[in-house]
Amino acid sequence: MINVGIIGFGYWGPNVARNFNASPEARLTAICDLRPQRRLVATTTYPFIKGYSDPSEVINDPEIDVVAVVTPVSSHYELARQALLNGKHVFVEKPFTMNSQQAQDLIDLAASRDLKIMVDHTFLFTGAVQKMKEIIEAGELGQPLCYDSVRINLGLFQHDVNVVWDLAPHDFSIMCHLIKDRPVAVSAQGVSHYNGDLEDVAYITVYFENPHLIAHFHLNWLSPVKIRRTIVSGNRKMLLWDDVAADEKVKIYDRGVELKIETSEEHVHNLLINYRIGDVYVPKLDATEALKKEVDYFIDCLNKNVEPFNNGQAGLMVVKLLEAANRSIAQKGQLVKLNE
Amino acid sequence: MINVGIIGFGYWGPNVARNFNASPEARLTAICDLRPQRRLVATTTYPFIKGYSDPSEVINDPEIDVVAVVTPVSSHYELARQALLNGKHVFVEKPFTMNSQQAQDLIDLAASRDLKIMVDHTFLFTGAVQKMKEIIEAGELGQPLCYDSVRINLGLFQHDVNVVWDLAPHDFSIMCHLIKDRPVAVSAQGVSHYNGDLEDVAYITVYFENPHLIAHFHLNWLSPVKIRRTIVSGNRKMLLWDDVAADEKVKIYDRGVELKIETSEEHVHNLLINYRIGDVYVPKLDATEALKKEVDYFIDCLNKNVEPFNNGQAGLMVVKLLEAANRSIAQKGQLVKLNE
Amino acid sequence: MINVGIIGFGYWGPNVARNFNASPEARLTAICDLRPQRRLVATTTYPFIKGYSDPSEVINDPEIDVVAVVTPVSSHYELARQALLNGKHVFVEKPFTMNSQQAQDLIDLAASRDLKIMVDHTFLFTGAVQKMKEIIEAGELGQPLCYDSVRINLGLFQHDVNVVWDLAPHDFSIMCHLIKDRPVAVSAQGVSHYNGDLEDVAYITVYFENPHLIAHFHLNWLSPVKIRRTIVSGNRKMLLWDDVAADEKVKIYDRGVELKIETSEEHVHNLLINYRIGDVYVPKLDATEALKKEVDYFIDCLNKNVEPFNNGQAGLMVVKLLEAANRSIAQKGQLVKLNE
Amino acid sequence: MINVGIIGFGYWGPNVARNFNASPEARLTAICDLRPQRRLVATTTYPFIKGYSDPSEVINDPEIDVVAVVTPVSSHYELARQALLNGKHVFVEKPFTMNSQQAQDLIDLAASRDLKIMVDHTFLFTGAVQKMKEIIEAGELGQPLCYDSVRINLGLFQHDVNVVWDLAPHDFSIMCHLIKDRPVAVSAQGVSHYNGDLEDVAYITVYFENPHLIAHFHLNWLSPVKIRRTIVSGNRKMLLWDDVAADEKVKIYDRGVELKIETSEEHVHNLLINYRIGDVYVPKLDATEALKKEVDYFIDCLNKNVEPFNNGQAGLMVVKLLEAANRSIAQKGQLVKLNE
Repeated sequence: MINVGIIGFGYWGPNVARNFNASPEARLTAICDLRPQRRLVATTTYPFIKGYSDPSEVINDPEIDVVAVVTPVSSHYELARQALLNGKHVFVEKPFTMNSQQAQDLIDLAASRDLKIMVDHTFLFTGAVQKMKEIIEAGELGQPLCYDSVRINLGLFQHDVNVVWDLAPHDFSIMCHLIKDRPVAVSAQGVSHYNGDLEDVAYITVYFENPHLIAHFHLNWLSPVKIRRTIVSGNRKMLLWDDVAADEKVKIYDRGVELKIETSEEHVHNLLINYRIGDVYVPKLDATEALKKEVDYFIDCLNKNVEPFNNGQAGLMVVKLLEAANRSIAQKGQLVKLNE
Repeated sequence: MINVGIIGFGYWGPNVARNFNASPEARLTAICDLRPQRRLVATTTYPFIKGYSDPSEVINDPEIDVVAVVTPVSSHYELARQALLNGKHVFVEKPFTMNSQQAQDLIDLAASRDLKIMVDHTFLFTGAVQKMKEIIEAGELGQPLCYDSVRINLGLFQHDVNVVWDLAPHDFSIMCHLIKDRPVAVSAQGVSHYNGDLEDVAYITVYFENPHLIAHFHLNWLSPVKIRRTIVSGNRKMLLWDDVAADEKVKIYDRGVELKIETSEEHVHNLLINYRIGDVYVPKLDATEALKKEVDYFIDCLNKNVEPFNNGQAGLMVVKLLEAANRSIAQKGQLVKLNE
Repeated sequence: MINVGIIGFGYWGPNVARNFNASPEARLTAICDLRPQRRLVATTTYPFIKGYSDPSEVINDPEIDVVAVVTPVSSHYELARQALLNGKHVFVEKPFTMNSQQAQDLIDLAASRDLKIMVDHTFLFTGAVQKMKEIIEAGELGQPLCYDSVRINLGLFQHDVNVVWDLAPHDFSIMCHLIKDRPVAVSAQGVSHYNGDLEDVAYITVYFENPHLIAHFHLNWLSPVKIRRTIVSGNRKMLLWDDVAADEKVKIYDRGVELKIETSEEHVHNLLINYRIGDVYVPKLDATEALKKEVDYFIDCLNKNVEPFNNGQAGLMVVKLLEAANRSIAQKGQLVKLNE
Repeated sequence: MINVGIIGFGYWGPNVARNFNASPEARLTAICDLRPQRRLVATTTYPFIKGYSDPSEVINDPEIDVVAVVTPVSSHYELARQALLNGKHVFVEKPFTMNSQQAQDLIDLAASRDLKIMVDHTFLFTGAVQKMKEIIEAGELGQPLCYDSVRINLGLFQHDVNVVWDLAPHDFSIMCHLIKDRPVAVSAQGVSHYNGDLEDVAYITVYFENPHLIAHFHLNWLSPVKIRRTIVSGNRKMLLWDDVAADEKVKIYDRGVELKIETSEEHVHNLLINYRIGDVYVPKLDATEALKKEVDYFIDCLNKNVEPFNNGQAGLMVVKLLEAANRSIAQKGQLVKLNE
């Protein structure tokens, strides 16, 4: 049985607590929140737990094996570091840290102590992303050619981060999960209107080692309509994910371009580009709550001593992309390499 | 009565001919095509015209007042130049020319001879664009904040131009028509897969003198679905144009962001960002054929000696944006200024 | 202050309790449920109330002014009757009663004791129905010509009622609320597949005193897609309500038919039928919880001694239409008059 | 080689002429129209044909093997009868005849002369209907339970027929083609507003020998939106055809109801109704022009002396359903048996 303590019981913490509590191989033992009223809600809902007011109480509690850090990003690094130093595994909200140096420190610290980090990129455990992963890994799309992601609507504005840090962690983590190719550079554009220098509209292009692959992200708090749509075009098939659709969220299109080079007397090389339009297939998606699957997976990784795929490295790559996007926006699209 | 001669009777030429022929103040007098079969179709349809096989015959025909150049872009410059040198007004297909130097030469030549150029950006005469122009000019959107355009589908690949030169002339001309602010620079990204170095996917950001305005264009021949959608977000209202919709193509959203700065003891400056969600309005659009309205407008401009809004300068700006986009793509998003 | 006691704390009861509790001029004083566990939830949520196990305790409680009957339809009549006999106002779930005789009895009883009945047709208090009512009452549609309602999806099957008694109470109550004309007869068709004689597909036509108006209802548990759409066509404008749409649920179309009778020498009477296609208008809808508005309205009616529009008569008309539909289905569409 | 003569060269005649002309085993030899101008268009387009002004010229032309009757329905019977009497095969527009007696006469006459009749129910040859036929015949849907068809939009009003005779021939012919079960009776409702007694809104229910199958048709000239949608629910899968969709017109849903009867001590018979929600499949549809396929099929039937499926009997069934619908509307839904 793995004992879990949670730091932070605001908007998302209750969901994390509920799922750890429901996990048959985990035991929720403590919840910490600075606010007395939130502690009261926690201890009323789970009368068997310890209600702490200071995060160090969780971190120092010898009974606890896993610390879940469900706080604003500014405190992730320090809380996760203290937990790792005290020998606890860490489950931490996204984005992982405020910068890539912090993320690397935590990864190194966990490695040196043989501890695990899971970054809570919940979207990776939705039925839609799981199905897309399955389809892409099975090679159905062939070689990916273009990854296009749009996540736009009217607000909600965040007071302390721009639209990139607010929305792109979702899309960057999904792209890194679905696409094997390694991102190498970013060019990004953005503009701010309402909240000082914080961009409310941003466009981000990601380049890969493979020069024929491109990914692009449109993030926008100023759209009159809500669109959450990702297109992955491969050389065999193409995929569309519409996360706003009530139904039929993921569609696989048997469509593509076929290329022939014809050699005749007249035309030594005559390029023939044809389109292939076949059936569309709309797979059924698993409707289980994503966070439940994620929490169960984390417990399973701990029991089997297996590194989770959404580990510190995965969290670090997202932070690197966020950093690079912000730097490129400040330079009006100037290419920013990820290993700079 | 204005006499019109047309050079080029392929795919689009018959539409141009039909509309000049139908215009009450114009007279279609000659059509030129190198291919005998196309000439035969032209002279059978319009038995009263002269069928020419050599463009110089149109250009030298003293009866002709207007030459319509409906040929591939590579011949626009030379044909338009000869026509202007012979004292003819010119109606020319888009894109105007192969580069901005050619466009400037033609503009200068027309000015020196007191002749008019109209570049056939037909989209500007559709009911949708006319209605959007009317709404934006009336100030309904307030200050434009973001202009986002998506024109994607599977093919058609062009053999000699990339996706930017194929599709962006539509969108650049529409943006320049709708938005008064002056574009100053471009950052663009693209990738090619099937046809040598010719990009089949491209993303283009346009910056303006106004640093709080941004425009972005997604052009793509590799999308499994056809999307032609433009969003214009203003600080008062927002607009969506879905050109693929069978009905309700243009929608005006009474939606926006409202900003208050509250000064209290606790919070000296507390930024309050609210959303305003009001009615949506779907105006009826004029269904008259766009090219008919354009041709009638050209004849009217000639009769009244008024410069058309889609003149050489408008055509030049589109060519400048195309050039800048291609240069920026080659440099992975490097900012390219338009006056460089 | 009006004291409210609730009978039934299953699926819907908690919502009724919450809204009466939140109403500033009502006081939730008792909740009754036969199941001890449901009583425990009720008294834990509202520690200040009396938890009763027998409905007669609510009905006999002298402190209580209003009894809310939130039980299966088979018990509505007896519980409401006892409550009225004990001088209580009654708030009762839909459908009002199992037959029209029961409904009439309750209406008469309430009238004789000067008590009020409200039937919980919650849909009438949604932003969509309120807006449609406002538009139709303002005469925007002109004379209503056709009312078409579709409510179909896959399940949920009810074990004890057919698709008509399950779904049509919503649509009949909405139609009667929106349309002033008086229904006079019903023709209905249906078929059953899975649950004995209980129909899972039904089509119902309602005739009115006005012979030029028709209403039709499609109710179906066997549709692969979920459609909840009502069209009201008037002679001036037309209205579409799509309750499944995430946004833009109600649209007003400035569309219609225009009729001219031309008298000329040739054609003494030449009927000219034209179509008018104008703008579409999508009004913003009130997003307040419908049940909250309904409960507040009931309390207000009691305080002001005003008859609510969703009173026993309104509930009776819905029951009469349900009865007539079932009778007509059994006779394969035979016309059933409502006053039979 | 089969020689074809066409009577009627108005709106649809040119399409029929073009396709017979293009058919490799047919020869277009004559076109008849009363109007000189239409004859001129015909003979200019097909200079090798005979242009007739009187239908009897076609009917008496010894060279002609097939007469295509592309005239208003009121003349179908007499023209087809004369053609058959003169030994010609007949291709006739839908609806086949003005009443079922006429249809039966023509069927009998053709049979007695060993001639063929094809009724031009073009929709049966669209890619969508062909694919649905294939799916249903392969048993993918299992037993059909419900057939629901909606064909509504604003106009066009016909001056001489009601909305049933205008629109239902499409849907009746499609239903009879897709569903093997035999229709036995009709209940229908309708109302008229603009054109005397001619209904502009109608609802038609069709009953079958199989008492568990029902079909329903909504036909309407007064809808603000255009909907052309058919749902076929089977006990294994369900199908949706949206003919207005630009793409993905036919969808097959692996959805249904599963029934278990559980026998336990407590519940001797406990009915368990479950829903099965699986994948959706969107087959590619053949995009060949439907009329081309129909004409080629007719020529092939003649060459092979095979009865076409859209023969006189098929046309007669549609006429019987139209007659029954009109009779039932006049009696407000009274059941009308087809063999009455």
